[in-house]
Amino acid sequence: MLLSLAEELDDLNVEFVSLQEKSKEYQKTLETLRTIEKSCMSMVTHQKKKYTQIGQTLKKHGKDLGLEDKPRWEELQRHVAEKQKVCVEIHESLPRPSEGFLKLTLGQVSVSLLSKSEKFDYKEEYERFKLYMTIILLVFSLATALFIDFRVCDALFHFLLVWYYCTLVIRESILRHNGSRIKGWWVLHHYLSVVLCGILLIWPASVSYEMFRNLFMAFSVYLNFLQLLQYYYQSGCLYRLRALGEKSDMYLTVEGFQEWMWRGLQFLLPFLMLGYIFQAYNAFVLFKLSFHPECNEWMVPASAIIFFILFLGNFFTTSKVMLSKFQA
Amino acid sequence: MLLSLAEELDDLNVEFVSLQEKSKEYQKTLETLRTIEKSCMSMVTHQKKKYTQIGQTLKKHGKDLGLEDKPRWEELQRHVAEKQKVCVEIHESLPRPSEGFLKLTLGQVSVSLLSKSEKFDYKEEYERFKLYMTIILLVFSLATALFIDFRVCDALFHFLLVWYYCTLVIRESILRHNGSRIKGWWVLHHYLSVVLCGILLIWPASVSYEMFRNLFMAFSVYLNFLQLLQYYYQSGCLYRLRALGEKSDMYLTVEGFQEWMWRGLQFLLPFLMLGYIFQAYNAFVLFKLSFHPECNEWMVPASAIIFFILFLGNFFTTSKVMLSKFQA
Ligand SMILES: CC(C)(COP(=O)(O)OP(=O)(O)OC[C@H]1O[C@@H](n2cnc3c(N)ncnc32)[C@H](O)[C@@H]1OP(=O)(O)O)[C@@H](O)C(=O)NCCC(=O)NCCS
Ligand SMILES: CC(C)(COP(=O)(O)OP(=O)(O)OC[C@H]1O[C@@H](n2cnc3c(N)ncnc32)[C@H](O)[C@@H]1OP(=O)(O)O)[C@@H](O)C(=O)NCCC(=O)NCCS
Repeated sequence: MLLSLAEELDDLNVEFVSLQEKSKEYQKTLETLRTIEKSCMSMVTHQKKKYTQIGQTLKKHGKDLGLEDKPRWEELQRHVAEKQKVCVEIHESLPRPSEGFLKLTLGQVSVSLLSKSEKFDYKEEYERFKLYMTIILLVFSLATALFIDFRVCDALFHFLLVWYYCTLVIRESILRHNGSRIKGWWVLHHYLSVVLCGILLIWPASVSYEMFRNLFMAFSVYLNFLQLLQYYYQSGCLYRLRALGEKSDMYLTVEGFQEWMWRGLQFLLPFLMLGYIFQAYNAFVLFKLSFHPECNEWMVPASAIIFFILFLGNFFTTSKVMLSKFQA
Repeated sequence: MLLSLAEELDDLNVEFVSLQEKSKEYQKTLETLRTIEKSCMSMVTHQKKKYTQIGQTLKKHGKDLGLEDKPRWEELQRHVAEKQKVCVEIHESLPRPSEGFLKLTLGQVSVSLLSKSEKFDYKEEYERFKLYMTIILLVFSLATALFIDFRVCDALFHFLLVWYYCTLVIRESILRHNGSRIKGWWVLHHYLSVVLCGILLIWPASVSYEMFRNLFMAFSVYLNFLQLLQYYYQSGCLYRLRALGEKSDMYLTVEGFQEWMWRGLQFLLPFLMLGYIFQAYNAFVLFKLSFHPECNEWMVPASAIIFFILFLGNFFTTSKVMLSKFQA
């Protein structure tokens, strides 16, 4: 038996030696990659800075030019804009250190996704995560709205919401680090939602809480339903964007994508607006509640203010996005 | 002016072209690296599996062998153990996908740190983060223990603790993903601390809360002081471990490191044990409090149980670690 094992080990040793060589080759290639990366990064940073300066100079002196210089000036601006676009693409294809919230939470580990397909995969997974959590939250909020009425279960629901929004902040920060154009308001929206859920958590089991609780649960049910619609829209856009970038037979054109996007938005927008009106209504109910004789808790006006800020931010950001899409 | 800008753009264009070439070279090297990585990973996974199987077979048949076969059997076992060690090192030098909690929170982004120096840097930053947070929490807990007595400030402190422990869980998961040998209990300890702080958060402002609050704040002050001592010990170990690995003149020997480690532990251990006794005392006080006539909240026995579990886990894990260090 020992003899057969020794033979097996000898056979394995051949592969082991080539594994060690492959590993050395890997380390060497990694070092080469890091060197190229460093030089690439310093070049692109220098280029970006220079093009930004030249662009600003061109803009500043644009008005002082005579009519005969205008065409040349526009040509230079176009040249600068083209080069800047390529520089930004190259910059985003290189690994960059984390900053701000990501650096605070994760430390100095790179969360750069280097290939387009990795970025698409990551975004798909993010949308799938939101879908599963939305279903869980929908079931939970339906149950607490219709059957279960214990403060502890409400607290568990609020804790789950806090964890969910914090995880979204982390994942969306990683998406933004990798070039996603998520508007800053949507991330701020999550921070405000965390604060709101925190307030609901520490709101004592009082008369005012009982008067607001059912409305909040109904709102949660609607919000989760809305997020199911958003998932349908966003994953549809993502699928078509990916097909646009990958398929060479161009069976899907840019016009085809835009047509789908507009149909999706036409369907989604009324539901979104209803959600924002619901938020404004919550703010109004809480504001009235703060004048109730049996209501002494600061949580009531505080949540009213936050719901109102959420309504304003959501309404104006969505309107701005729709307007810019219309103009494009 | 346009002429001088056009000249500047021409000069920049030379660097721009070489930037594009460098970027293409980067992409090519990255693809090569990924190919080598895939082949390396499949080889090392296969090797690890085979060596594990052979190791298990050797172990199983070890007792059935005659005396004359024993030396050969031990030689084969040593051979397998050596190869497994190298395979584990190679496996840890390759990027691996995240699993479990990291995958849930961050999604599918690689948090592998590939070089030893990156791993050391990451650990140093993690210890520094703990130091800064410990100082902030120390000041906060001193203030709430001595001067400020508002339920809202307590709630803010508890929220900060929840955020701090969750961030530690994320960072320690990243450390473990990159080969750190942090015992599972220390990560579980953080999960339990999050639950404990959550319970303290939703504990209503009642007689029982007022009776426990000051003890908890005093405990927090001691815990943070203890964490300052731990920082001193851990960062000292890390500094010397790094010097051991990096300096070729070996001015620091393995014996020198061990001597420092034992002196550090001798200093730290009494303070640690005092902390664990404090946790057991908290559990006892809460247990007695749950029989108080004015105490109806479930938070009291729940926190008592958690404090007791923390005491048991801390005590036994630390004793186990000290014993294994003594035997080594
Ligand atoms: C209005 C809306 C439909 C527009 O969506 P859109 O067509 O994707 O808009 P944009 O062009 O601004 O999107 C740019 C990027 O931001 C992302 N994005 C937009 N809104 C997002 C949101 N609410 N959460 C996360 N990502 C979002 C898009 O996926 C896209 O990502 P990409 O750059 O990686 O491709 C969308 O912003 C939305 O659903 N808003 C509602 C938010 C909400 O939940 N409100 C609370 C209801 S009570
Ligand atoms: C007992 C103790 C001093 C031993 O420390 P040690 O000498 O580093 O012990 P180990 O050999 O088990 O450490 C192995 C690894 O785990 C890490 N580690 C050990 N305890 C840790 C802890 N509490 N938190 C984070 N990491 C820890 C070490 O840094 C080391 O990391 P590495 O593999 O990357 O080098 C340490 O575990 C400790 O400080 N425990 C007290 C924990 C605590 O806070 N208790 C609550 C007080 S009320």
